[in-house]
Amino acid sequence: MKFLVINGVNLNMTGRREEGVYGSESLDDINRQIAAFCKKNGDEVEFYQSNVEGELCSKIQSCIDGQYDGVVLNAGAFTHYSYALHDAIRCISTPVVEVHMSNVHAREEFRHRSVISPACKGVIAGFGKNSYILALESFKL
Amino acid sequence: MKFLVINGVNLNMTGRREEGVYGSESLDDINRQIAAFCKKNGDEVEFYQSNVEGELCSKIQSCIDGQYDGVVLNAGAFTHYSYALHDAIRCISTPVVEVHMSNVHAREEFRHRSVISPACKGVIAGFGKNSYILALESFKL
Amino acid sequence: MKFLVINGVNLNMTGRREEGVYGSESLDDINRQIAAFCKKNGDEVEFYQSNVEGELCSKIQSCIDGQYDGVVLNAGAFTHYSYALHDAIRCISTPVVEVHMSNVHAREEFRHRSVISPACKGVIAGFGKNSYILALESFKL
Amino acid sequence: MKFLVINGVNLNMTGRREEGVYGSESLDDINRQIAAFCKKNGDEVEFYQSNVEGELCSKIQSCIDGQYDGVVLNAGAFTHYSYALHDAIRCISTPVVEVHMSNVHAREEFRHRSVISPACKGVIAGFGKNSYILALESFKL
Amino acid sequence: MKFLVINGVNLNMTGRREEGVYGSESLDDINRQIAAFCKKNGDEVEFYQSNVEGELCSKIQSCIDGQYDGVVLNAGAFTHYSYALHDAIRCISTPVVEVHMSNVHAREEFRHRSVISPACKGVIAGFGKNSYILALESFKL
Amino acid sequence: MKFLVINGVNLNMTGRREEGVYGSESLDDINRQIAAFCKKNGDEVEFYQSNVEGELCSKIQSCIDGQYDGVVLNAGAFTHYSYALHDAIRCISTPVVEVHMSNVHAREEFRHRSVISPACKGVIAGFGKNSYILALESFKL
Amino acid sequence: MKFLVINGVNLNMTGRREEGVYGSESLDDINRQIAAFCKKNGDEVEFYQSNVEGELCSKIQSCIDGQYDGVVLNAGAFTHYSYALHDAIRCISTPVVEVHMSNVHAREEFRHRSVISPACKGVIAGFGKNSYILALESFKL
Amino acid sequence: MKFLVINGVNLNMTGRREEGVYGSESLDDINRQIAAFCKKNGDEVEFYQSNVEGELCSKIQSCIDGQYDGVVLNAGAFTHYSYALHDAIRCISTPVVEVHMSNVHAREEFRHRSVISPACKGVIAGFGKNSYILALESFKL
Amino acid sequence: MKFLVINGVNLNMTGRREEGVYGSESLDDINRQIAAFCKKNGDEVEFYQSNVEGELCSKIQSCIDGQYDGVVLNAGAFTHYSYALHDAIRCISTPVVEVHMSNVHAREEFRHRSVISPACKGVIAGFGKNSYILALESFKL
Amino acid sequence: MKFLVINGVNLNMTGRREEGVYGSESLDDINRQIAAFCKKNGDEVEFYQSNVEGELCSKIQSCIDGQYDGVVLNAGAFTHYSYALHDAIRCISTPVVEVHMSNVHAREEFRHRSVISPACKGVIAGFGKNSYILALESFKL
Amino acid sequence: MKFLVINGVNLNMTGRREEGVYGSESLDDINRQIAAFCKKNGDEVEFYQSNVEGELCSKIQSCIDGQYDGVVLNAGAFTHYSYALHDAIRCISTPVVEVHMSNVHAREEFRHRSVISPACKGVIAGFGKNSYILALESFKL
Amino acid sequence: MKFLVINGVNLNMTGRREEGVYGSESLDDINRQIAAFCKKNGDEVEFYQSNVEGELCSKIQSCIDGQYDGVVLNAGAFTHYSYALHDAIRCISTPVVEVHMSNVHAREEFRHRSVISPACKGVIAGFGKNSYILALESFKL
Repeated sequence: MKFLVINGVNLNMTGRREEGVYGSESLDDINRQIAAFCKKNGDEVEFYQSNVEGELCSKIQSCIDGQYDGVVLNAGAFTHYSYALHDAIRCISTPVVEVHMSNVHAREEFRHRSVISPACKGVIAGFGKNSYILALESFKL
Repeated sequence: MKFLVINGVNLNMTGRREEGVYGSESLDDINRQIAAFCKKNGDEVEFYQSNVEGELCSKIQSCIDGQYDGVVLNAGAFTHYSYALHDAIRCISTPVVEVHMSNVHAREEFRHRSVISPACKGVIAGFGKNSYILALESFKL
Repeated sequence: MKFLVINGVNLNMTGRREEGVYGSESLDDINRQIAAFCKKNGDEVEFYQSNVEGELCSKIQSCIDGQYDGVVLNAGAFTHYSYALHDAIRCISTPVVEVHMSNVHAREEFRHRSVISPACKGVIAGFGKNSYILALESFKL
Repeated sequence: MKFLVINGVNLNMTGRREEGVYGSESLDDINRQIAAFCKKNGDEVEFYQSNVEGELCSKIQSCIDGQYDGVVLNAGAFTHYSYALHDAIRCISTPVVEVHMSNVHAREEFRHRSVISPACKGVIAGFGKNSYILALESFKL
Repeated sequence: MKFLVINGVNLNMTGRREEGVYGSESLDDINRQIAAFCKKNGDEVEFYQSNVEGELCSKIQSCIDGQYDGVVLNAGAFTHYSYALHDAIRCISTPVVEVHMSNVHAREEFRHRSVISPACKGVIAGFGKNSYILALESFKL
Repeated sequence: MKFLVINGVNLNMTGRREEGVYGSESLDDINRQIAAFCKKNGDEVEFYQSNVEGELCSKIQSCIDGQYDGVVLNAGAFTHYSYALHDAIRCISTPVVEVHMSNVHAREEFRHRSVISPACKGVIAGFGKNSYILALESFKL
Repeated sequence: MKFLVINGVNLNMTGRREEGVYGSESLDDINRQIAAFCKKNGDEVEFYQSNVEGELCSKIQSCIDGQYDGVVLNAGAFTHYSYALHDAIRCISTPVVEVHMSNVHAREEFRHRSVISPACKGVIAGFGKNSYILALESFKL
Repeated sequence: MKFLVINGVNLNMTGRREEGVYGSESLDDINRQIAAFCKKNGDEVEFYQSNVEGELCSKIQSCIDGQYDGVVLNAGAFTHYSYALHDAIRCISTPVVEVHMSNVHAREEFRHRSVISPACKGVIAGFGKNSYILALESFKL
Repeated sequence: MKFLVINGVNLNMTGRREEGVYGSESLDDINRQIAAFCKKNGDEVEFYQSNVEGELCSKIQSCIDGQYDGVVLNAGAFTHYSYALHDAIRCISTPVVEVHMSNVHAREEFRHRSVISPACKGVIAGFGKNSYILALESFKL
Repeated sequence: MKFLVINGVNLNMTGRREEGVYGSESLDDINRQIAAFCKKNGDEVEFYQSNVEGELCSKIQSCIDGQYDGVVLNAGAFTHYSYALHDAIRCISTPVVEVHMSNVHAREEFRHRSVISPACKGVIAGFGKNSYILALESFKL
Repeated sequence: MKFLVINGVNLNMTGRREEGVYGSESLDDINRQIAAFCKKNGDEVEFYQSNVEGELCSKIQSCIDGQYDGVVLNAGAFTHYSYALHDAIRCISTPVVEVHMSNVHAREEFRHRSVISPACKGVIAGFGKNSYILALESFKL
Repeated sequence: MKFLVINGVNLNMTGRREEGVYGSESLDDINRQIAAFCKKNGDEVEFYQSNVEGELCSKIQSCIDGQYDGVVLNAGAFTHYSYALHDAIRCISTPVVEVHMSNVHAREEFRHRSVISPACKGVIAGFGKNSYILALESFKL
């Protein structure tokens, strides 16, 4: 199987940002572990990160040709207001799993609402970097 | 007369996205028909599309020199939260007509609110690709 | 084609009421221009105005026999609370286009909500008397 | 006993309107069955229908002389905003039972609120034409 | 001076309706006293009552020719949702004073909001039949 | 036909609780009259009461085998917040009629909202013990 | 008869404050005219003004001995949040009439809500200094 | 490791209830597969189901002695209002993962809010029976 | 005098749960101190605890025979949504005092609202185990 | 021990104001009983009352030197909006107990919210004059 | 230039109140530094502090004669509800700058809303005692 | 010291956009004056402007290495909804001061809420171009 892992705004700062919430590993560290996990399973994985909402939409749109079996999306703060991402997800038939490293429901009020959830297949939140692993696992079950 | 037709986020997917809502013609198909319509009327028309909110703002700003007689804007999902686009429209004196292919008021709750309407000259929604034609027509009346 | 143009409450005062918003032409003046426009297109048009919500509902109901190809409805202030009109529109299969002369979204808060939009085919607002012309045009495209 | 059955806005379209919700019998068909039911019980019944809110108020007011033992009221869409009907019901001491053919609570949000219920004796909703029969039955128990 | 006193929905029931709130005098009784008061002041006064919102709008519109020096309006329950009346009042330049016999602010929640107040010159509430007298008096000061 | 009448929390106190609202007959008294009514009609009826939300859910679930032609449910205060009951009703295909002895819409604000109505066939409220009788009657029509 | 006219916060600035709203006469000017009006009627009147909410409460409380036949209260901005004044008015049985010089309902949103109205006998707003005169008049009718 | 899987209200109906949402396998079928999964991993697992909120609280409380390495909780409809469950989870230090078979965010409005999430370690929703497997997996990572 | 002290959901965990909020004494410890206090006063006291909302309702209902002079109720999280408890309290005439060990108003938003307060005689919150003592004391004064 | 009992706005009217709610004893009567109670316990007590919010703040501030072991505060209507009092209480470390004679939660909606509770140690409401006694008692436990 | 620095409720406690938020310097310390700063600039400055809302209004009103070139106002908790202060500021034409020592937007919800901002020239928040200095500086630029 | 001044969406139009609000100087003009001010103080300053939300986030993130002593941020319309900017500011420890040229609280409702304020050190609004100068000044104090 072939997967795409998309990280949105500010996730490039992982490891340098609020360690209590996001841990001390960098996004590259995490991606390397995800890649190793996929390799072990005989799966392919690609990574994409952008701080620009429109570029994230374009990347999601580009999955329309079915080249991926699943998309894992951590949209960062865009989760809470980007109806553009919501619509982009609706444009494709590839299943998209929404992930969050922290348990967003135990943080500030504004993080309790996700405008992209209704367009996603499922949601996984609160397991640190393992949220990504679990999302990938979900496509294998 | 000279017009600018701006399409926002995800509208580049028209024809490949929720056919029941947006029809099966691509944005290029639609633009070709709009161009033909303008040509027939002896008008010029230019097209612009971007998924990036800031680029759409820049494009709208660029109309400040009065080179267009009217702008037709389908902002896609940005319609519902982009106060940046609202402000960009307020920066120029060229009239901007807000269009939507679908009747946004008969869809999800979040599509009932437009934050850009108060800055526009008028709104046309629900006529599929003809929403663009009617908007252009409005400048000729 | 044959059309019906319905004007609701207080629109009989057009031309004598808030000129800055509604212009100085009377409803009769406007209707004459609409009639001329239809005639030029080889279409028939009828006009109806009432200040009574229930009479407007009855008129809309009367379209159930399919005698009109389209209805243009400016419901005036009823737009903002008449679920009765909403239901009347749902009773018929003739397409109804909601129009407003002013850009209601740039006026008082209470004018931002239309309870009839979800039952209409589309919405056209902000083009003065030309909102009617554009609505009629929409049926021809 | 003597009853009055009042139908409000758009209920004259019953049978020709959203069959899935309201069935295919006309209001006359339904009234005939109600009349037969009353006759069988040795009761008298009168019918009134209007699309005009104010006429419905006047009809309700007219019951003040106690000529009816009970009023059955299906106010249609007025149910959801007509404080005028609410006040009219409060003007009389004859018990008024609010009925709806459909289960309004399983439909659009705006139908979940009745502004007339607080002035009524009771509410019966969801039994199609039998909502009227049950309301009449309620006066006999 | 010449005045018009308009009573809206259910006010024709005054004297027969919730005596604790509205007193036991009929609307005719009250109007007679108002007429006497005006006569004593050398003023003319006319009366109008309707339960139909649209007819009340039409009556208010008819004042556009300036035949009255002031209008006293008790809109009854329409006070709380009739944007149509609001707009009708805005159509004319004759000052309109909103009156209520009861102190609406000490009654049910829905009576605390008036959608017509912003279009009126002033508001007088809580003085029983004398609310009308005070409103007329206000034009004389 | 065979019916099940379910009473929820605090309804076992009927007759000993707020007589002005619920009358002075005990739930057993009322059930006896319901039983007599059913017997007269040649129908069977069973009764169930519990103060425990989960037990009420279990009882409703147990109807899944179609042993009843109809269920009459007075959920008491659970009406206003028990999404568990809502879901239990959705689990079965037997029609459930929601009943209330009092007119809940004329009481405290929190009683105006029913979270179970959307899952029920219909609602009957305000007829005292006869609300049950009317609900049973509704299955016979 | 004997009256007390109480003016609340910022009303001592009348005549020097937003002339378009409050006119150019000072509070002393207005009080002199009120006094003249009372004298002409053979009534006594006293005046009180304070910017301190608690002093206004104390003054209102002091009326408990029935020395005044009526109180006219313009609470200024306290109108919109002073539950203390509301309670003070409830402490006495002397009727209190709430007045406003401007039509508060046609101004900022926060001025549309009065927390003292439910404790007052009535409300008079929008007649400039004549609001006081009309309030005093109301006690004479 | 040793796990506890708790299912709340109406989940005992899985397989017999809204198949489109919950699939056709019974809770026993699902539990058997979960047990097999755990056995394969060398883990122990226990199951508990109740329709009674208080019993679910008691079961969660009973984990206080640390006999489980993790709890998987599908609270059903209680998710949306049971602050009692929220508090019960806060009583213990064993990590609790909230699961839902369906994507609750793509269903009715009332299912979008979880009152137990803030007390849980994480949330997994939308993967059918595999939501349980992923939750168990999360404790192994 | 004879009292009943009722503790609701999760209060059986007192002493093992969030010590900072609830202290380190168990409910049994606290009850022993309450019993000693009562004994010293020559009063009788009984204790009841349940996690099941319906059982708490039943216990409260059982006080209808007047066997207790007062009930002290700490409903735990049920305080914030159990209208069932509210109604159960309304069923009896024995005074019920609502207590909380913590100052609920200084904790999470959802703990600021009590749906049972309107049915209680009074509320005492924030004094740890002494909240119970003060409630019992209140019946002696 | 030494205590301060502070009464806010309108509480000087106790005994002369809404007897059904506040009883017929004057504040002096109540204070005398409180003084006797303290004397009996060997405690000192001082009393302060003001209708002026700022003076109440100053009095509370003055406790900063720790001269009192506890403050009992009945803020009257200021309870519901005085963030100034909230902040004043936060300025001192002496524990402040909020009291109300009536059960504020069973009265008007606006009395259900206390903005000072989060700054207080605890809340006691509903026990008439004994609310003060219980608050003083709380410092002794 | 000549300035007036006004401090509202509880600011007299600065230095003795929540040091983490307000620092440990007293208001006198701060005022001395402000005075030194002004002296250095060749400006005059006066100081005023009161805990009484109405006295603050009076002080602001007193600026109407233009004796100050600018007013710096830290209204403390009055910021969040005192429409009286809002109106007092509107009474004068001297520019008023609203200051806060803490960043009110990063504190409790109720501190996020300022009802006086719309009447002020500008807002400065979050710079401790330097908020005053920056406000004074603003008049010099 | 070294500063970074960041301007967000539409601020590149300053001087050409709503002169009444933003003045007639271009952003370059303003920046030149800021640079001169810094130079005079012996400070370094850099400028950045973008209409793209994600680029602004990236720029803010880039400050993580501590190369600036302070950041001045005018986010334009992004202020009101960009949680992405909020999170970006939280990523760095360099203090960020939020500035606005206009007094946003005196403009449209949507401009009253800033979602970035809680992450900033302070806020300065309403001083035109001097808002930038005051923000820079704040770092020097």
